[in-house]
Amino acid sequence: MELTGKNIIGNALAGAGKETFFAVNPSSGNKIEPAFTEASREEIDNAVQKAWEAFQTYRNKSGEEKAQLLEAIADEIMALGDELITRCTKETGLPEARLTGERGRTVGQLKLFAQLLREGSWVDARVDPADPDRKPLPRADIRSMLRPMGPVGVFGASNFPLAFSVAGGDTASALAAGCTVVVKAHQAHPGTSEMVGLAIQRAVRKCQMPEGTFSMVHGATVEVGQALVRHPLIKAIGFTGSFRGGKALFDEANKREEPIPVYAEMGSTNPVFILPRALQQRKDNIAKDMAASVAMGVGQFCTSPGLVFTQQSEDEEQFRQLLAQSISELGGGVMLTPGIRGNYEKGIEKLRSINGVEVLAKGKEKATACHGTAYLLHTSAQNFLEEEALEEEVFGPSTLAVTVQHKEELLQAARRLRGHLTVTVHGTEEDLLENQDLLSVLEQKAGRLIINGYPTGVEVGYAMVHGGPYPATTDSRTTSVGAAALLRFARPVCYQGFPMALLPDELKDGNPLGIWRLVNGKLQKD
Amino acid sequence: MELTGKNIIGNALAGAGKETFFAVNPSSGNKIEPAFTEASREEIDNAVQKAWEAFQTYRNKSGEEKAQLLEAIADEIMALGDELITRCTKETGLPEARLTGERGRTVGQLKLFAQLLREGSWVDARVDPADPDRKPLPRADIRSMLRPMGPVGVFGASNFPLAFSVAGGDTASALAAGCTVVVKAHQAHPGTSEMVGLAIQRAVRKCQMPEGTFSMVHGATVEVGQALVRHPLIKAIGFTGSFRGGKALFDEANKREEPIPVYAEMGSTNPVFILPRALQQRKDNIAKDMAASVAMGVGQFCTSPGLVFTQQSEDEEQFRQLLAQSISELGGGVMLTPGIRGNYEKGIEKLRSINGVEVLAKGKEKATACHGTAYLLHTSAQNFLEEEALEEEVFGPSTLAVTVQHKEELLQAARRLRGHLTVTVHGTEEDLLENQDLLSVLEQKAGRLIINGYPTGVEVGYAMVHGGPYPATTDSRTTSVGAAALLRFARPVCYQGFPMALLPDELKDGNPLGIWRLVNGKLQKD
Repeated sequence: MELTGKNIIGNALAGAGKETFFAVNPSSGNKIEPAFTEASREEIDNAVQKAWEAFQTYRNKSGEEKAQLLEAIADEIMALGDELITRCTKETGLPEARLTGERGRTVGQLKLFAQLLREGSWVDARVDPADPDRKPLPRADIRSMLRPMGPVGVFGASNFPLAFSVAGGDTASALAAGCTVVVKAHQAHPGTSEMVGLAIQRAVRKCQMPEGTFSMVHGATVEVGQALVRHPLIKAIGFTGSFRGGKALFDEANKREEPIPVYAEMGSTNPVFILPRALQQRKDNIAKDMAASVAMGVGQFCTSPGLVFTQQSEDEEQFRQLLAQSISELGGGVMLTPGIRGNYEKGIEKLRSINGVEVLAKGKEKATACHGTAYLLHTSAQNFLEEEALEEEVFGPSTLAVTVQHKEELLQAARRLRGHLTVTVHGTEEDLLENQDLLSVLEQKAGRLIINGYPTGVEVGYAMVHGGPYPATTDSRTTSVGAAALLRFARPVCYQGFPMALLPDELKDGNPLGIWRLVNGKLQKD
Repeated sequence: MELTGKNIIGNALAGAGKETFFAVNPSSGNKIEPAFTEASREEIDNAVQKAWEAFQTYRNKSGEEKAQLLEAIADEIMALGDELITRCTKETGLPEARLTGERGRTVGQLKLFAQLLREGSWVDARVDPADPDRKPLPRADIRSMLRPMGPVGVFGASNFPLAFSVAGGDTASALAAGCTVVVKAHQAHPGTSEMVGLAIQRAVRKCQMPEGTFSMVHGATVEVGQALVRHPLIKAIGFTGSFRGGKALFDEANKREEPIPVYAEMGSTNPVFILPRALQQRKDNIAKDMAASVAMGVGQFCTSPGLVFTQQSEDEEQFRQLLAQSISELGGGVMLTPGIRGNYEKGIEKLRSINGVEVLAKGKEKATACHGTAYLLHTSAQNFLEEEALEEEVFGPSTLAVTVQHKEELLQAARRLRGHLTVTVHGTEEDLLENQDLLSVLEQKAGRLIINGYPTGVEVGYAMVHGGPYPATTDSRTTSVGAAALLRFARPVCYQGFPMALLPDELKDGNPLGIWRLVNGKLQKD
């Protein structure tokens, strides 16, 4: 298909802005046609105004109607066929197999939310019927349920051009909650974004949803994103990306006349703790699997394990050698953008320059543009405790091994940790029972705790929590992956003394939708 | 009992600070003994440190254990007997009957949360069992549930010295969620606060909870509250009070190195819309009941109706006369503090000074200190649409009647509204069916919509939402009253690949607690 390079404003395409930019093929360093036009201030305003108008209709669509929209989006994405994958590979350097898998996940997410909407119980319907005989005062009829917040601004991520971008988890969950969406496409894959954006536009049309249900604006400068966050009719923000980017949006949103929630997933270092017996028994496998986890997506996963804590011992020295061996064999790969690769190299330089940090291994280098080379660095827990910078995320295929002297130091290091998306512990049953104090500390540091596994690979299910305390995210009460993600875009509304005809179906007597409801404090369906 | 005027730091009393202040009897203007000592920086730090240490134990207490604590607090409050009511009446000017009722509500809230904890399903337990045969990749065992956030800072409110203060909804819900609490007592009722604070201290001791589970600091200056919000070990804030106070805490919390959620309920003007047929049929009753709602608590309720919209007609003119009559008969009453009374008078002056605003009626005046006199003001919708200040809360027994010319103007006024705690509509069935567009707009403006009732009187139940879009609160996703209030102080934590022995009971195979859980996406109990 011919790409237009334009912004998607409801049913139309628009490109009146003056600034243009190109995607760059990170494998070759060459720019890719066509030029994309940065959205003008007027176009952004237009998109949000349309989203606001559409919201007045879309918010009252039934679960079934919204489910059909999500499924239609999934179908339209699949109908893009190989062309989508080809363009995406060019723009991101990510291999075809990975992108095919990511497309499956993207479509799967949309379908999961469709299923949730058809089932319908996610709205947390509560019914406290009237009690006219209550003393000293009668009780009014009081019911409540979750209702959508309003138009949501979604920022596409660089590292998941499909699953965390235009039709990714934020868009899918916002649409599922009943919100309309304006996406700021990530400038590193504007062609992929246009293709997916047009697929959504077609689905909206096909399902006869109001045209402003979805819009998408391009921008290579920060102004476009800022204008979106500042727009008074935008009521929430979804973002996946760097700490700097997410924090800037968070601050911007709090400066508004009406502050709005910002759900920024800003990545983390995902510490891994390997306890003594596990180290003794499985050091070979752990070293190999850890290296594979570090290498995954050229280290460009939010859940990439960037810190490994082990306790000094002979086993530990052997483990470090094994890990160094595995890391040195890693081929590395093409990173997403020259900027990301530049930051990765700066990050490694910064770590290396810190007193007491040494490089234990380096993966294979390649002279090609944007090559990311794997690194294993090492330091002492003492050093880690003194240098806050050692906990900062270095986005790329590196990990820092930290040697602790004894258990108390391990606990100290754990207590010093800031918030992370995940924390992993390897241990035998005995190890784990002996280290419940460690687990108790770690539970306060992350959204997801993993035993004897690896943090990369985020399951899209009902129980997933992809979130965590600050600075992993700006809102630890939420997840950006899994069924609970749509709760971010809804708020409870209470209806007191409403005639039955005016109540949403979810709250009517007789429970016409057959959903789970809390009636007088008891969950029931009948 | 003899009041000490000291701060409650865990198990101890402390008063090393230099600043002292007295409560003032608003009825007489006289200060009340003893002097209360503002907490020193060290005492605040000490309280939070103890809360942090206690949290490490308290967070793992069972629902049953936490329920017992809440019930013990309720018992200790009741055991204070008349002395509590007497002191509280002196400090607040609120009548005995009202305070006895409020005490009942406070104790009722504690017991509601105890019940919720025993039932146990509030934690939103989710279980996605492992699927080793899944293709292309096996699925790990993934489970999640809500876990407490950490020590919570609670700010007592002036207008509900029991139900929204030391052992009020914020404290009860934070303790229920598994958080420890440091209360900043409201300076207007420090004696009441000490009595209730000591009751909690006794309950904590009796239930053998860690001593830092609860502390309470005094302060008449903003510094004490600021120090609490800025403390790095405080993980969330609960507040009920003015917009200025709540917004200041919100900004302070967002400036922290680790921003934390602030649940500030900042009141609102609680608009009331009276539709034509209801006006025609029930103008007498509505005028009478509306005046009673305005008068309730001398207008010092967060849900006091401060705006009344009606459409011009003969009925409307009669209604306004009836309302004026009812308001002019109101006796008014003693306001909570000289400061609040001063602000009320300034607020009325400000409204009166706005072009096009006239005073229709004034309640009875009294020469006593702190007397709040009821007011009915009137203006046109045109004027309302032009003057943003007319939507601002005037905390006290006044209401502003706004006359709209026609339905389109009514909708315009509704669309212009900012966020409120409640919006009320009076209408016959026909009125309501004709005005569904109005209801749809209003649903986006408030946490609670009331049909043919009055906003004052907040039911403590399962379905209650006492919240609403900004500026009514700083977090529209939550409620500060009712069963869902404890969700504010918890965040989801995900456990992947955990051995059964290390999982919380809520997530174990066999569901030993017998709670409702989402297993593979299906709600079940067995």
